[in-house]
Amino acid sequence: MFVEVYPTSQSLLDAENKIVIVIDVLRATSVITTALKNGAEKVIPVVTVEEALQLKKNLNQNALLGGERKAIKPEGFDMGNSPLEYVADKVCGKTVILTTSNGTKAIKSCQNAKDIIIGCFLNAKAVAREVVSRSQALGGDVDIVLLCAGTLGNFSLDDIVCAGAIIERIVKLHQDLEFSDLATVARLLYQSTSDKIYNLISIAKHYKTLKELGFEKDVDYCLQQDILDIVPIYDKAISAVRLLKK
Amino acid sequence: MFVEVYPTSQSLLDAENKIVIVIDVLRATSVITTALKNGAEKVIPVVTVEEALQLKKNLNQNALLGGERKAIKPEGFDMGNSPLEYVADKVCGKTVILTTSNGTKAIKSCQNAKDIIIGCFLNAKAVAREVVSRSQALGGDVDIVLLCAGTLGNFSLDDIVCAGAIIERIVKLHQDLEFSDLATVARLLYQSTSDKIYNLISIAKHYKTLKELGFEKDVDYCLQQDILDIVPIYDKAISAVRLLKK
Repeated sequence: MFVEVYPTSQSLLDAENKIVIVIDVLRATSVITTALKNGAEKVIPVVTVEEALQLKKNLNQNALLGGERKAIKPEGFDMGNSPLEYVADKVCGKTVILTTSNGTKAIKSCQNAKDIIIGCFLNAKAVAREVVSRSQALGGDVDIVLLCAGTLGNFSLDDIVCAGAIIERIVKLHQDLEFSDLATVARLLYQSTSDKIYNLISIAKHYKTLKELGFEKDVDYCLQQDILDIVPIYDKAISAVRLLKK
Repeated sequence: MFVEVYPTSQSLLDAENKIVIVIDVLRATSVITTALKNGAEKVIPVVTVEEALQLKKNLNQNALLGGERKAIKPEGFDMGNSPLEYVADKVCGKTVILTTSNGTKAIKSCQNAKDIIIGCFLNAKAVAREVVSRSQALGGDVDIVLLCAGTLGNFSLDDIVCAGAIIERIVKLHQDLEFSDLATVARLLYQSTSDKIYNLISIAKHYKTLKELGFEKDVDYCLQQDILDIVPIYDKAISAVRLLKK
């Protein structure tokens, strides 16, 4: 089983027939995981704000619009990109249409993958377990891609450390692994900082942007490890992320 | 002074008006540095083998052809991509036309940069000194890009660690610095492994390829730090890399 990490969706070389874990810690994949945990029926990732507004018109009243541009809620949207907004009272039973600057684009960039799984610190262990289980069901003969969303085409520290966290959990469940160079780096980074992730991520560019905008509580929330035992998966048949049925 | 690192030439967002340090430790930038140290007049980087062969026809007998495809010397070339081949007996006073899979492409990918400097472990300290000196001459108001060549569009551990080595030397000479996320990661990697770089790089994909092909001695040579006190610079007027005149 070959494990590789790409720092941005632009850098992804090939997802075909691979199991892809999309990671956008701050904040899209943390939002998706939280919304589904709180009972949202599904999350439809779309690339543009216009597409999101149009899709809401086409769908029934059950749909909510969420997302950001430059970290801020676009006009006419129900929710921004803070996972703390996606409480059960708001999202339970609803469809969420989500568009963000990096995360939803990353999901749309790997549509030829075998599976697309949504990962973050919140569900790192559950994602690792699911990936290993899928790989074993296929006789181990499948490659794993951790696709970091990055920030506007740039390497993002928070996503890479989370990739390392998920890889570390995969390693505990599966022995026969090979790693790409960035997978090795992600793992080393996580190993060297697993007890002080907040300190490391506080030097990340994207963290500074969020802090300046008053989203520090989002960061506190998103850096919690393994608090949600769920696996959101992109279902190509409905072009949406839903929870894996157990 | 903002210091940023890009893992591949494909990922480079913007080089305009910046000082770019191109890094391809294994082996193109180590070859260029070594050839110039051993008296080569200049090194002309070209992208394709065909272009290299044509250029040799157009130039006089003083030109030598060097480089690789899949790590091996192309047919009709004088030298491969091993820095150990570029001895004074062969290259002194000569023009070297060089084409490699990643390094020479990286040099050609940032032609709109303010300056293009060739860096590797061999001359890490000299490069750091030169960059800081150029930045100070401009009042500190210039950004530094460490452009890693990577391997066929993929992140390469050896280049990132070398970027960290050069950044660490820049930090010792200049205080007022800001770092991109990958610059931070490169620095952390180098700091955590500066006394055992060989061990770290021995898990890199590209190292394994070179080892299988019998190029271990090249790796030993290329990982030596600060043994060459020279700064190769790309001179746009002659489309070639030459030594900085002191």
